Amino acid sequence: MRAMSFHPPQRTLMGPGPSDVYPRVLEAMSRPTIGHLDPVFVVMMDELKELLRYAFQTRNALTMPVSAPGSAGMEMAFVNLVEPGDKIIVCQNGVFGGRMQENVERAGGVAVMVDDAWGEPVDPLKVEDALKAHPDAKVLAFVHAETSTGAQSDAKTLAELAQRHGCLTIVDAVTSLGGTPLLVDDWGLDAVYSGTQKCLSCVPGLSPVTFSERALERVKARKTKVQSWFLDLTLVLGYWAGGGKRTYHHTAPINTLYALHEALVVLREEGIENAWARHRRHHEALRAGFEALGLSFVVKPEARLPQLNAIRVPEGVDEAAVRTRLLNEYSLEIGAGLGVMAGKIWRVGLMGCAASQRNVLFCLGALDAVLTDMRAPIQSGVAVGAAMAAYSA
Amino acid sequence: MRAMSFHPPQRTLMGPGPSDVYPRVLEAMSRPTIGHLDPVFVVMMDELKELLRYAFQTRNALTMPVSAPGSAGMEMAFVNLVEPGDKIIVCQNGVFGGRMQENVERAGGVAVMVDDAWGEPVDPLKVEDALKAHPDAKVLAFVHAETSTGAQSDAKTLAELAQRHGCLTIVDAVTSLGGTPLLVDDWGLDAVYSGTQKCLSCVPGLSPVTFSERALERVKARKTKVQSWFLDLTLVLGYWAGGGKRTYHHTAPINTLYALHEALVVLREEGIENAWARHRRHHEALRAGFEALGLSFVVKPEARLPQLNAIRVPEGVDEAAVRTRLLNEYSLEIGAGLGVMAGKIWRVGLMGCAASQRNVLFCLGALDAVLTDMRAPIQSGVAVGAAMAAYSA
Repeated sequence: MRAMSFHPPQRTLMGPGPSDVYPRVLEAMSRPTIGHLDPVFVVMMDELKELLRYAFQTRNALTMPVSAPGSAGMEMAFVNLVEPGDKIIVCQNGVFGGRMQENVERAGGVAVMVDDAWGEPVDPLKVEDALKAHPDAKVLAFVHAETSTGAQSDAKTLAELAQRHGCLTIVDAVTSLGGTPLLVDDWGLDAVYSGTQKCLSCVPGLSPVTFSERALERVKARKTKVQSWFLDLTLVLGYWAGGGKRTYHHTAPINTLYALHEALVVLREEGIENAWARHRRHHEALRAGFEALGLSFVVKPEARLPQLNAIRVPEGVDEAAVRTRLLNEYSLEIGAGLGVMAGKIWRVGLMGCAASQRNVLFCLGALDAVLTDMRAPIQSGVAVGAAMAAYSA
Repeated sequence: MRAMSFHPPQRTLMGPGPSDVYPRVLEAMSRPTIGHLDPVFVVMMDELKELLRYAFQTRNALTMPVSAPGSAGMEMAFVNLVEPGDKIIVCQNGVFGGRMQENVERAGGVAVMVDDAWGEPVDPLKVEDALKAHPDAKVLAFVHAETSTGAQSDAKTLAELAQRHGCLTIVDAVTSLGGTPLLVDDWGLDAVYSGTQKCLSCVPGLSPVTFSERALERVKARKTKVQSWFLDLTLVLGYWAGGGKRTYHHTAPINTLYALHEALVVLREEGIENAWARHRRHHEALRAGFEALGLSFVVKPEARLPQLNAIRVPEGVDEAAVRTRLLNEYSLEIGAGLGVMAGKIWRVGLMGCAASQRNVLFCLGALDAVLTDMRAPIQSGVAVGAAMAAYSA
């Protein structure tokens, strides 16, 4: 067998994540490993929590990164907040609502589904109906930014409805954190999880989470043990809680935490409002380019995520062949459709440091060239110019 | 608030893990992030599985790294192999047997505990009695290398007993993998999990696991769904299984996987038998130095792990003060005791690239100097010489 070091190519990552990583984040990650109970590391952990509070726009004490990807952050929210028999209202308008349902059911809960078409935001009227029809529901769960479709739901309104009906909220903010406004405290969200490999432009592998005091009280009042030892908040807190002595729970992923720390320092330096505006600005240019080519968006304008652009594959075009050519000829990755949208859409990410003029023009130029070469029914040669015009507008 | 990049000090890591990381592993981790479905990445994943099979000495098809620390690897083994009501025999001779019990109970199983004193290996006679007394037991679970005490149990004999009584085995090999013989196929182990931050000298954050065909059949024959979505083997396999098309399950921790790949290439280059012999050789020198100082081991010679040396704190010595001085004056980390051994022992790791003459002599010199300065009842000034004599013997 071959046993040689692995040297990956340099890609431009404009899929649904991982996104391009800041070079300084990669460099931070390669700094010397120290112990997970080292006093110097503990200081870094405290800074990291404070930086995450800034990213989430919250004062929640319980704000930290879970030592595993976003799916584990999701599972932490559900296994801690759902007890057997609990009724949970789950909004589904893409892949990740379905995953929430799996989480509820595996935790012994009963999922009441509120369905919207893929590509649509969650409909607050349907949610209100469900809350009225199920006054015993304990939690309202929804996805803020659906990575599978590029649709953004109105988290503020949904959270208000939940509060009015005495429900906690579990919110998937994997793709929204750092890319589009997410105001955990102002909106009164209770359990929010995200990922590091989207708009934070960090490497994948961690899930930042934040829990309100209300949520923590619910966890503390549980009658049953949390089914996961690894994700049991009361145990994880022994290690991550500030102030007193830290108790060993599991060995923290030291170097990946260096990376997240650095990515959050970058966010802090830029300013989160500036980061949101930057995602919006480059999205407008990318949108102008796509529209000039004649490509249409899956999501209506008012619900579009700037950082995840889902566009329809033109009639008669082999969508996988286009992605393969982009990857092989341009070292550019864009995303395929998931689930019912497989083969029908592309997902073009502008996440974190990938939200740049360089990436927008490169992507439009490459896509224009490949589609033209494949004789796709598009308006050739106009994408980059349209984007440039949008930048000057 | 301070928002500055974090620059950790350069430590020498001789605690119970994380251990010193190979510089080339840190360098590999900082290579460009690529997509988790990139064809180039998929080739790397296949290599990684093959390299892990070598490390585990197995041909098990289902051999892969879990995208989370060793505790999650443990949880994957239990939540997949335990169904509600299943009786599981759990051997406890340190901290991690207790964690296994938690895992069994949270998965709805019934744990039958076989207890041995901390510092002792698991007693096969007690295990045989338990297997006879509980013919309906489904699994025998034990820790191969107890990180909390430095004791090694006879995994081969325990696995034979389990097979004779129709039980599968779940084996904690977090601290043994790469440091001391672990022959998964020869010994017939069924579900084995480990960590990356011990004798592989990789960064923390991943849990290599391997499952036998028998174990996989048990998972496929389950009557109930696995309670964890994130750790459900049948779902994770959709991404990690070789051959066909890979299905998205969660975003893999790309860069940490680069690190593990590199650490395993290093192991392959050295040869695993040579790595085991190296751990043994440096342990003998360290042992000679400790004994010359008058420090005694917790574990009897025939059950000692070469890579984790638990020694008793001399009478009247403030154990935490010694560790603090080693850290502050020598940038050297050694480990404290856990649980019932807190305050009574030190745990000195010789794991992976930390198993070197440089580390042995440095540790003995520093410990000798600090203990002498603190007027500990030891034989001063002789440790390094004794270790050097052991190297020449």
